[in-house]
Amino acid sequence: MKLQRFQNAEGSIIPAASMDGDTWHGLETICDDISPAAFAEGLMDRLASLDINDLEQLDTAGLSIATPVAQPRNIWCIGLNYSDHAEEAGLPIPEEPILFSKSSATFCEANADIPYPPHMTKLDWEVELALVIGKTALCVSMEDALDYVAGYTLANDVSERSWQIERGGQWVKGKSFPNFCPTGPMLVTPDEIADVQDLDMWLDVNGTRKQTGNTSKMIFDVRTIIHHVSQFVQLEPGDLILTGTPPGVGMGFKPPQYLKPGDVVELGITGLGQQRQTVVAWD
Amino acid sequence: MKLQRFQNAEGSIIPAASMDGDTWHGLETICDDISPAAFAEGLMDRLASLDINDLEQLDTAGLSIATPVAQPRNIWCIGLNYSDHAEEAGLPIPEEPILFSKSSATFCEANADIPYPPHMTKLDWEVELALVIGKTALCVSMEDALDYVAGYTLANDVSERSWQIERGGQWVKGKSFPNFCPTGPMLVTPDEIADVQDLDMWLDVNGTRKQTGNTSKMIFDVRTIIHHVSQFVQLEPGDLILTGTPPGVGMGFKPPQYLKPGDVVELGITGLGQQRQTVVAWD
Repeated sequence: MKLQRFQNAEGSIIPAASMDGDTWHGLETICDDISPAAFAEGLMDRLASLDINDLEQLDTAGLSIATPVAQPRNIWCIGLNYSDHAEEAGLPIPEEPILFSKSSATFCEANADIPYPPHMTKLDWEVELALVIGKTALCVSMEDALDYVAGYTLANDVSERSWQIERGGQWVKGKSFPNFCPTGPMLVTPDEIADVQDLDMWLDVNGTRKQTGNTSKMIFDVRTIIHHVSQFVQLEPGDLILTGTPPGVGMGFKPPQYLKPGDVVELGITGLGQQRQTVVAWD
Repeated sequence: MKLQRFQNAEGSIIPAASMDGDTWHGLETICDDISPAAFAEGLMDRLASLDINDLEQLDTAGLSIATPVAQPRNIWCIGLNYSDHAEEAGLPIPEEPILFSKSSATFCEANADIPYPPHMTKLDWEVELALVIGKTALCVSMEDALDYVAGYTLANDVSERSWQIERGGQWVKGKSFPNFCPTGPMLVTPDEIADVQDLDMWLDVNGTRKQTGNTSKMIFDVRTIIHHVSQFVQLEPGDLILTGTPPGVGMGFKPPQYLKPGDVVELGITGLGQQRQTVVAWD
């Protein structure tokens, strides 16, 4: 099942589900929203036993696409998780998942503009497979880890490299400006994805391919990530985890290539849809 | 004004205010809760023009003390921010504030137990002055920075040093286990504090003094922290910022001293009250 949140002209959110990604059915009779609170109350179990053809079809004309889930409390990221990206960066393969976070205030819809203030100099892109946690996870086993996934989505882990690396030591400073986490357009339930560790991913800047990858190159797969992170952090319903990026980030080019106002970033992952962001000067 | 949230036997939260810290007045007619949403709706301005003697007195018998504010979205921390602590750690004075974060799921009441699972080995303490953001702050000037403070509170930045330092590079992994951020007991508005950069702070373990400090030793004062962090991160109403710890953490002793189940940690800051946590074995 695919889940998406639409927004009408008045700003109201309409949660919806689809089997084919084309015909959408409103979920208003099932839940108020696709939100951390709804996950905590067992939304995914209720959806699993649902025949969406029993729901009224939604006329999506005039509706815009919002984030696929409501505001998460935490956004977690795994660093250097693709063997070919670690190679590109000239860095050793990590011995265990590198965990960092983004401000929850970076969360935005798939096609939101990326703001570029005057003090920004090294704005970069990272196409990533993201997952949404469906229920509270603390110290979960490898065996059970995938039971905690509500679904998968697409994210751009937008990064400012000088803030990340040259401004005091911890990466979060370069990962947390507003709209640094475009997410969506949709959340896809695990049963719809034949093999989450074999998905093609790509990212273009101004129409030129920059990143090409496949989730088979992850050093730590999704199961391992959830098991590992949950040893140190209580993952909450609705929490987002970004699982790392393949080669081809701006920082990896010689000389490096960074985004400027007016640039357009497009990205996608097989079965999870596409995003398109424009970098916009901001003061 | 001092703000505190009480909890009754049914689990309901009762927000309250006090001038003397002794007689409390219920705020039910003013706000649903002392929460990020209430801050965003101008709670602090409403409280500033309030005579709390117009409010009914609250009988606190049988009530427990909850967190001083409702669940924040983000918990931010400043690392190595006391000159005498940097000296103790043998580390250079940072050139700008070191920013890191804790999971928002670490947030708990002042006297909550600290869980100690089998894989924990280097559990440590950090008494800190914390502040709560009252309104959205992005790229704010030094001059205006203090206008964004709703109030001050006490926090223990509980840390697991092996997870923080030996498990993959970013500190957040050792800062984010459940109950790693005891906060409160109360939120004190800025007008009640003569000089926030001259507050004594202390922490005892099992009755023995470990940390003694004063906020005058901060390398970056509260004004600078808010100005600086807001250049990189949009601070949201309700966000918590922990401003760093003075000397005397367990890691700083030779040999290091770490907490074990049964240990009791007590801490306080002048005018902000005290906390008491017990370390409890957890599996």
